[in-house]
Amino acid sequence: MKRLVLATHNKGKVKEIKTILKELNIEVLSISDIISIEDIEENADTLEGNAKIKAEYIHQKIGGYTLADDTGLFVNALNGEPGVHTARYAGENCSEKDNRLKMLKSLENIEDRTAYFKTVLVLIDDKGKEHIVEGICEGSIAFKETGEGGFGYDKIFIPKGYTKTFAQLGLDEKNKLSHRAKALDKLKILLVDVLNESSYN
Amino acid sequence: MKRLVLATHNKGKVKEIKTILKELNIEVLSISDIISIEDIEENADTLEGNAKIKAEYIHQKIGGYTLADDTGLFVNALNGEPGVHTARYAGENCSEKDNRLKMLKSLENIEDRTAYFKTVLVLIDDKGKEHIVEGICEGSIAFKETGEGGFGYDKIFIPKGYTKTFAQLGLDEKNKLSHRAKALDKLKILLVDVLNESSYN
Repeated sequence: MKRLVLATHNKGKVKEIKTILKELNIEVLSISDIISIEDIEENADTLEGNAKIKAEYIHQKIGGYTLADDTGLFVNALNGEPGVHTARYAGENCSEKDNRLKMLKSLENIEDRTAYFKTVLVLIDDKGKEHIVEGICEGSIAFKETGEGGFGYDKIFIPKGYTKTFAQLGLDEKNKLSHRAKALDKLKILLVDVLNESSYN
Repeated sequence: MKRLVLATHNKGKVKEIKTILKELNIEVLSISDIISIEDIEENADTLEGNAKIKAEYIHQKIGGYTLADDTGLFVNALNGEPGVHTARYAGENCSEKDNRLKMLKSLENIEDRTAYFKTVLVLIDDKGKEHIVEGICEGSIAFKETGEGGFGYDKIFIPKGYTKTFAQLGLDEKNKLSHRAKALDKLKILLVDVLNESSYN
């Protein structure tokens, strides 16, 4: 079925237009319908599962090449937690700061601070085919927040072989060694192939 | 250039991914980049101009069939105002209630309450061709708010030949005679042709 996208968030207009056009053989969507990714339940029990949910949702709504990321922090002393719950470790709608503080609290007086970040990227190409890559960065959890850059847990994660947190290292350095950078490096190689194939067809 | 849509609103992730993929010949967009229609300046001096701005913006971002509406209320005693300023008559970010109260205030002690609503619809089809239709509904501005349904000025607009406001008439009745309904009826006829043409190509 063809799709008609309404260039408005106005619910009153959307309701009127949908009602009047309902007998036509066309799916009528507002841009709010298309972009409400916040409403997606990332309820898979793996990073790959969650990344697929997001990529498939956006691919279905917008089409074309779509990329979704899901990233987890796996802490050995916490039996791999928070893992798939990394973004909402301190609760639904918690802030990134809340997450960091909960992590520092969870590891209070714990000696083994080793942990790793894992990113799974799901690319859906223009033909709907899924491609999956992943990247891992080993390291440890600091004893307190340090540094100003980054986001998420960057202020408390020290990559292996370094003495500074991701936040202290800055984006250029982080992008040489992070989990997401490693996954994106693999994606780049894959994308070059996918884009080439696409232009020959 | 091909486009890659990132299924996230997370600004930190978006920044990292854009940085790492920047050497590839692909445009990287987050879904936030795609849907920020609130940021569009509807600064044309006609309804048609504003509807075109919105339809072209969304067509360029999402592709496929796109429909935008711009609607104005033209009040004779106010020399056609608010016209293109109808949605923000009481100021930027004002509420629909603010707009209605300002209108009632503007017409205080004024006898000629005649006015008309005009809707312009701009449809962009899957080949990028623009189609424009319009609808007008004559009527008058009530002396106070009445009714519970509808949105915008519905509580204070009485269509010609009626004694009730759009809000009192309800959506079914409003959809038989409103400016938007008239424009959408024309659009329906046009869409049937456009969809047929498209399936023959």
